[in-house]
Amino acid sequence: MNRNLLLISNSTNASEEYLAWPRSYIKDFLSKHGVTKTLFIPFAGVNLTHDGVEKSFDLYEERVRKIFKELGFGLHSIHRELDVVKAVNDAESIVIGGGNTFYLTSMLQKFGLMEAIRAKISRGIPYVGWSAGSNVACPTMMTTNDMPICEPLSFNCLNVIPFQINPHYLDANPAGHAGETREQRILEYLTVNRDAIVVGLREGDLLTVEGDTMTLTGKRPIRVFRFGKEAQEFQPGENLDFLLKTS
Amino acid sequence: MNRNLLLISNSTNASEEYLAWPRSYIKDFLSKHGVTKTLFIPFAGVNLTHDGVEKSFDLYEERVRKIFKELGFGLHSIHRELDVVKAVNDAESIVIGGGNTFYLTSMLQKFGLMEAIRAKISRGIPYVGWSAGSNVACPTMMTTNDMPICEPLSFNCLNVIPFQINPHYLDANPAGHAGETREQRILEYLTVNRDAIVVGLREGDLLTVEGDTMTLTGKRPIRVFRFGKEAQEFQPGENLDFLLKTS
Repeated sequence: MNRNLLLISNSTNASEEYLAWPRSYIKDFLSKHGVTKTLFIPFAGVNLTHDGVEKSFDLYEERVRKIFKELGFGLHSIHRELDVVKAVNDAESIVIGGGNTFYLTSMLQKFGLMEAIRAKISRGIPYVGWSAGSNVACPTMMTTNDMPICEPLSFNCLNVIPFQINPHYLDANPAGHAGETREQRILEYLTVNRDAIVVGLREGDLLTVEGDTMTLTGKRPIRVFRFGKEAQEFQPGENLDFLLKTS
Repeated sequence: MNRNLLLISNSTNASEEYLAWPRSYIKDFLSKHGVTKTLFIPFAGVNLTHDGVEKSFDLYEERVRKIFKELGFGLHSIHRELDVVKAVNDAESIVIGGGNTFYLTSMLQKFGLMEAIRAKISRGIPYVGWSAGSNVACPTMMTTNDMPICEPLSFNCLNVIPFQINPHYLDANPAGHAGETREQRILEYLTVNRDAIVVGLREGDLLTVEGDTMTLTGKRPIRVFRFGKEAQEFQPGENLDFLLKTS
């Protein structure tokens, strides 16, 4: 598939400014592909303000636009468009921000945007996603960490990579807390989805997918889970193309 | 509604033995209602062994049966029954254990057990649930912490209480981690479900519902969330009947 994806685990590392760590990577990626402006999809950001979902999208657009402007790119949000499918069809690049993956998936499905965005990606249009925006690039949204705050039509997503990402992957629970660890949750997923591959993408990491090549950027390894096999870690710089092979 | 429910946040506190903390409460609750044996529903426990879901249910039954035997109650698991609806209809009491809420919900829906269990509960049959087993007592499964490992027919659940429980409620993220806090997730839920009430049930806490009265047992307060209002904390011993009023 002729795809150009920047799939980012998290917008912001603890105690850093919003989108601080990935911004230089976003700049390099969009510049490399000659992008001057981007269509922003804010649908995961339902609660940036308590004044309702629409106001939250306004605020989300403003927050991200400011940063993209500093990086030299124009940005406007799809929630201001009447014909959202046309907005996608006309876009030079697409950026989907983080938040709640269930709400994002639900909105993309409701407006027929899954097919439209997938078609654009397959024509090589650069795509940037972080957190929920990385989750929806997967075959399904099933390895999200988010709370099911609404019911999407299905769990099917863009399916522009053949594996599942678990963003914000972390190794331990808070001290004194007894819920399932992230690894236990992913193993549960694999128990009932045995052919799937899950990539635990730690905070501060991102994946760049260009056609059939994939590279990891960041300070920490990814953790790759398959049913019935030991989890494996891969460092930044190692070849990850094999993870795209089942597509 | 003529209901008798013991809704437990978590089976096991960190560093304790399995079901250690709630077992005396389970014993008192079942004894009070004259129960001698119980039907166990293990469907949330998909990954207790790596030998597949059925083996996992066997192991889950064994683990819980041992403890219930010590408490003086017989227990057998519904996954051994051919006619699962009849098993529910014949049950003297029903116990649903924790694990993955999506898988549990999916199985209960697939086998027509939501209606059957709800009907039993409305006839006063004692019900005990922990973690996922408390989540499915709610109107929907939407405030679970679990990963969507499979797609249920819908998010609708037993609806034998009128509010949502968030089990394993916790206040902070692990140090250095930047994902949404539990409170942020619940506020996202309320933004798109404005009439709902969410009870954050901390580990080591349980709710006893008998008809139209509800009491909290445990060492920590519950945290009650409503759209557009400050979250409120209620201590063990305070009157919680108002939370049942919208039913």
